[in-house]
Amino acid sequence: MLFQEQNSYEITSYIKKSKVAILPVGAVEAHGPHLPLGTDNYLAEELSKKLADEVGGLVLPTLPYGQVWSLSNFPGSLTLSNQTLTNLMVEIGESLFRQGFRIMTVINGHYGNAIALKEASRVLYEKFPDCKVFVMFYPGTKEIIRNVRESTPVHDSYFHACELETSYMLYLVEEKVQMEKAINDTPVIPETADVTPTPWSQFTKTAVLGDATVATREKGEKIISVALENMTRMIQQAKDELGC
Amino acid sequence: MLFQEQNSYEITSYIKKSKVAILPVGAVEAHGPHLPLGTDNYLAEELSKKLADEVGGLVLPTLPYGQVWSLSNFPGSLTLSNQTLTNLMVEIGESLFRQGFRIMTVINGHYGNAIALKEASRVLYEKFPDCKVFVMFYPGTKEIIRNVRESTPVHDSYFHACELETSYMLYLVEEKVQMEKAINDTPVIPETADVTPTPWSQFTKTAVLGDATVATREKGEKIISVALENMTRMIQQAKDELGC
Amino acid sequence: MLFQEQNSYEITSYIKKSKVAILPVGAVEAHGPHLPLGTDNYLAEELSKKLADEVGGLVLPTLPYGQVWSLSNFPGSLTLSNQTLTNLMVEIGESLFRQGFRIMTVINGHYGNAIALKEASRVLYEKFPDCKVFVMFYPGTKEIIRNVRESTPVHDSYFHACELETSYMLYLVEEKVQMEKAINDTPVIPETADVTPTPWSQFTKTAVLGDATVATREKGEKIISVALENMTRMIQQAKDELGC
Amino acid sequence: MLFQEQNSYEITSYIKKSKVAILPVGAVEAHGPHLPLGTDNYLAEELSKKLADEVGGLVLPTLPYGQVWSLSNFPGSLTLSNQTLTNLMVEIGESLFRQGFRIMTVINGHYGNAIALKEASRVLYEKFPDCKVFVMFYPGTKEIIRNVRESTPVHDSYFHACELETSYMLYLVEEKVQMEKAINDTPVIPETADVTPTPWSQFTKTAVLGDATVATREKGEKIISVALENMTRMIQQAKDELGC
Amino acid sequence: MLFQEQNSYEITSYIKKSKVAILPVGAVEAHGPHLPLGTDNYLAEELSKKLADEVGGLVLPTLPYGQVWSLSNFPGSLTLSNQTLTNLMVEIGESLFRQGFRIMTVINGHYGNAIALKEASRVLYEKFPDCKVFVMFYPGTKEIIRNVRESTPVHDSYFHACELETSYMLYLVEEKVQMEKAINDTPVIPETADVTPTPWSQFTKTAVLGDATVATREKGEKIISVALENMTRMIQQAKDELGC
Amino acid sequence: MLFQEQNSYEITSYIKKSKVAILPVGAVEAHGPHLPLGTDNYLAEELSKKLADEVGGLVLPTLPYGQVWSLSNFPGSLTLSNQTLTNLMVEIGESLFRQGFRIMTVINGHYGNAIALKEASRVLYEKFPDCKVFVMFYPGTKEIIRNVRESTPVHDSYFHACELETSYMLYLVEEKVQMEKAINDTPVIPETADVTPTPWSQFTKTAVLGDATVATREKGEKIISVALENMTRMIQQAKDELGC
Repeated sequence: MLFQEQNSYEITSYIKKSKVAILPVGAVEAHGPHLPLGTDNYLAEELSKKLADEVGGLVLPTLPYGQVWSLSNFPGSLTLSNQTLTNLMVEIGESLFRQGFRIMTVINGHYGNAIALKEASRVLYEKFPDCKVFVMFYPGTKEIIRNVRESTPVHDSYFHACELETSYMLYLVEEKVQMEKAINDTPVIPETADVTPTPWSQFTKTAVLGDATVATREKGEKIISVALENMTRMIQQAKDELGC
Repeated sequence: MLFQEQNSYEITSYIKKSKVAILPVGAVEAHGPHLPLGTDNYLAEELSKKLADEVGGLVLPTLPYGQVWSLSNFPGSLTLSNQTLTNLMVEIGESLFRQGFRIMTVINGHYGNAIALKEASRVLYEKFPDCKVFVMFYPGTKEIIRNVRESTPVHDSYFHACELETSYMLYLVEEKVQMEKAINDTPVIPETADVTPTPWSQFTKTAVLGDATVATREKGEKIISVALENMTRMIQQAKDELGC
Repeated sequence: MLFQEQNSYEITSYIKKSKVAILPVGAVEAHGPHLPLGTDNYLAEELSKKLADEVGGLVLPTLPYGQVWSLSNFPGSLTLSNQTLTNLMVEIGESLFRQGFRIMTVINGHYGNAIALKEASRVLYEKFPDCKVFVMFYPGTKEIIRNVRESTPVHDSYFHACELETSYMLYLVEEKVQMEKAINDTPVIPETADVTPTPWSQFTKTAVLGDATVATREKGEKIISVALENMTRMIQQAKDELGC
Repeated sequence: MLFQEQNSYEITSYIKKSKVAILPVGAVEAHGPHLPLGTDNYLAEELSKKLADEVGGLVLPTLPYGQVWSLSNFPGSLTLSNQTLTNLMVEIGESLFRQGFRIMTVINGHYGNAIALKEASRVLYEKFPDCKVFVMFYPGTKEIIRNVRESTPVHDSYFHACELETSYMLYLVEEKVQMEKAINDTPVIPETADVTPTPWSQFTKTAVLGDATVATREKGEKIISVALENMTRMIQQAKDELGC
Repeated sequence: MLFQEQNSYEITSYIKKSKVAILPVGAVEAHGPHLPLGTDNYLAEELSKKLADEVGGLVLPTLPYGQVWSLSNFPGSLTLSNQTLTNLMVEIGESLFRQGFRIMTVINGHYGNAIALKEASRVLYEKFPDCKVFVMFYPGTKEIIRNVRESTPVHDSYFHACELETSYMLYLVEEKVQMEKAINDTPVIPETADVTPTPWSQFTKTAVLGDATVATREKGEKIISVALENMTRMIQQAKDELGC
Repeated sequence: MLFQEQNSYEITSYIKKSKVAILPVGAVEAHGPHLPLGTDNYLAEELSKKLADEVGGLVLPTLPYGQVWSLSNFPGSLTLSNQTLTNLMVEIGESLFRQGFRIMTVINGHYGNAIALKEASRVLYEKFPDCKVFVMFYPGTKEIIRNVRESTPVHDSYFHACELETSYMLYLVEEKVQMEKAINDTPVIPETADVTPTPWSQFTKTAVLGDATVATREKGEKIISVALENMTRMIQQAKDELGC
């Protein structure tokens, strides 16, 4: 159920019934030749809808701007500062609390947002002790990814426009993918990239970090399903704890 | 043309051709029984698309959160601070400039955003002297409104969920309007409301400021067409001045 | 009664009796050849004194610096940021509350201050719910202006160094006006001035927006008297509500 | 010459001639039974005028609000934060620079402002290297005070509403002093007052720190004349260095 | 070579020769019964000295306060906000640049500092493009840890007061370890700990995350040596690139 | 007793017993040819230990970065902004309060820190009314200095790397002093230095303000002993008042 499609006469009863707000947060960022700039927004939004179906929550309008540092040099990338993104989430969270929500779940579609959103979740945690705040980025998928992935990962922590993300898109928003344009570009990321500021333009020209050509809808479904299951279980547990 | 649907290989040529970015900014806010909470988002987005068709610009993803002070007590209203909204627009503007845009047009769907967006436009104006920044809220429609409106306005400057805004919705996003639920609620706004902080809950229970029942698609079209014409002329003039 | 002329032994009894603080806020800004740079300060201060006579309040020292963006290019203009002006008013308001005032009335002499002062009034409103905060800029004078004005207004919302403001000065601080230097300079303000940052130097060289030569003391008195009446009535009503 | 009394047609030539801006900064603060709350404002303003006569500068409108921490518990005291006071002075300084001034002299009438004003002077110093920024608080008067003072000082660094300040008032603004109400109240300030936050209410009930009854116009004149001489000499030297 | 032990007459020649500043950043935080509160400070400092020996840098005084959120409930934990820690590093970095350093290496001894320090490194990167900024937290030790570790890790990303950290201490600052008090406390960290704010008090009472009893000096040496090698290689490479 | 050498199992009982936290704050700054850059850190730390012995407090790790404006041009000087230093002390103070301390004593080793630390002490004072916050910079030593000093002071308020500070170092950290390099450099500080921003490079090339050659351990001991006595007495009195 989409929050902004409801009207102010009916929304209160929905909030009372569910208490779970789901906020998709993405970004506008280069994703190679085969994926659109809004990839992270589409993923966050579609995953949010699926989650809402499982846990009975209300999906807020997608926040389509995020913190894009590493690819900010690339065509089409737009970025917010961490500070502004943190403030945004805190202020939306304050409104949600006033409106009666007690479980706030940010579905993050963009790795670069993680720091700002985590900071915000801590601020909200301290401000509203009787509220539960989640920030989810495909939680608990390490093992399934290890099983499903065919190409070699280029980095331990992040992935981008590659076999994984393209598969997610094929599963969740297939119509926005141009698989015929997918490429295999597997850069060697220098070890210094983890310890000194390193725009990705230093090691990739395509913004694709791996082999996107081997992506499939099925792989996407397998991984996303695990993520969704984990998210559902954790939110359900929070609902049980809060008795809602 | 929607910015986030493009990919990073093609976006540069589009930006070079157009130089005009169009950013819809709305809000999530109570709009009575017949209009959805996202009314201001839908209006800003649809109007942006129409404008893009006229001037050849790229429509950015809608920023769906705004400054909602007056109705923040109402069910479904979510709000940002002026400061955060200003920072958001400034930072998006900085990205747009780096990406090559030279005309930035914010299409504002929510009166309460005006202050924050104006402040941002001044910051960007000083930062990027060779850039043109517009913030548009149905510009130049006073006269046409005077001609079209049948109900009595409740306030000189703002209107809300009334004959006007409902007509805009009927013209731009008809499927989101439930005209059968439209009401006529014409409050008397105390004179102090203009000089002391006054949540609207002090004078309305419905969040409808006027007679929504007399709204029609035709009225919406007449007014919006004038607004669109004015916006188009001003942006066209800016394009001419910048030679783009 | 001027606040700063009192001493600390006697002030408490005055505050207890009145509870109404009146803060004139002006600006230092170009006002053409016939009006001094401090015009907005003089107006705010004299109007405050008249209001204090009516409602029995204490007039605080004039804050003589304001937000001057549109004319900041002109000789003699000095400006604060909106943020600093907001903070100033909030902090003074906090002190006034601690001192026992319960009605704070800002008499604003400069249109450009409106945004910052409104923001401050909302902050104070939320901080001190049992306090009433007004920001007044010639309230309720639209009709009388329509009746009195002989020259054509150049803008719907603001006026500057013209028939109106010069008349106010002639009525309130006649000795500071050099009527023999008054000019008629009626610029055409481009429609874009309302939607894109537009320093007034783009359409005026004199900083006079209209025909100052037709200003008279009588016109000033007529309009100011209505403003004063409105202000008095609203504050009196607030006093009644607070029982002070 | 008072800045705000000039008009925008003539001010430029005055600035070109003088380049020296003089900004009185005071405070609203308890000063015992015989001195008004605005004492620091009156002193700063009158001293500024005398200085302007000597060095040919333009006197800006008095900033009548300052940082009042130690006496903030007392009736009539109003206070700003250090941060806001610093920002105020910086922003006014930026305007002054743009207007063509090259020597900015703050005449401080309130000891508590010293920290914030010093911070601002450093910011301006770094921003405008070819500009000279002074903050003056009765400079170079230690010796003359030692000679003139009859009562025992209660503190090494500051004085308040006592023989000294009352004498300054008698010399500069005699009509605001009620000498018949002057008292002798010489508190013992605990040694901890210098190393831990200590509101003055902990050691005085009158806000008078010493014997105000022995104040005379002559003493005031003697000390102020030395301060004025020092200020004049230092500004004259700065004018010589800048060749203005 | 310790920076603060040098004097201002000689330091310039050292900076010219080395250009490498090494800043240890730690924290004061609960580390169980066998490790002192200052563990992260001791580790950062000793590792910094070893690195300085390898690359010829100057070791700055240890910044002994960090961001301690997860254990802030525990006895002895002190914490800074991320914002303050970021500002600190940025301002120290600005000073270092002015002093002539061109390679700044933060040796971080506390995982919780990572976010703030990374943010600072990006600010400095953008401010000083011809400067190299590293933030190092035992880089490149995944494999050696996998080989050396005997106990089961409790978390993928962080470790605390366990076999690893205790071994580091035994190697670097043996005299501060009380091995006889070492315990084995291996909590089960709930999956939600990664997606919702979770003070560690929710799953541990000891602040020891694993089996500290199997720590040895040898294990510490093996892992630290790899970290040191990696750090040395990366800084040496930076020196080569900058030609210093 | 050094705070960071304790472990989290034992620290609580120490805090309960003592309630007195002692925080040394210094700076890294040019101190001439005979004193190290870390002089202010060494002094603050050693004095803190002596004080802890007297009053039974816990010494926190030294904060080794301070606000260094006047000598920031000199080799080896590193500086923080006042704002950051204030935030640092406030946040550490908040942690100390949560940990159970009720008397916080900052031992300041660097005159330039005074403003930021005082501001912080006021913030903490207002936040924690049942807490006592001291900022000590050799309190109550004016008279003993007058008796002991042989050289002529160059300034009324501050001293630097001169007879005094060198004597303090000889008494507290003799091994860091190279007396054979001590010099006599007694600059004439212009009167303007007190009223306009004046980097010390304008009047000294050595950073030594006076005759360091006449410094002795005995002089240091005499002055420091008085300071220590005063500090001890004031903290003891605070302990008595708080009953701890």
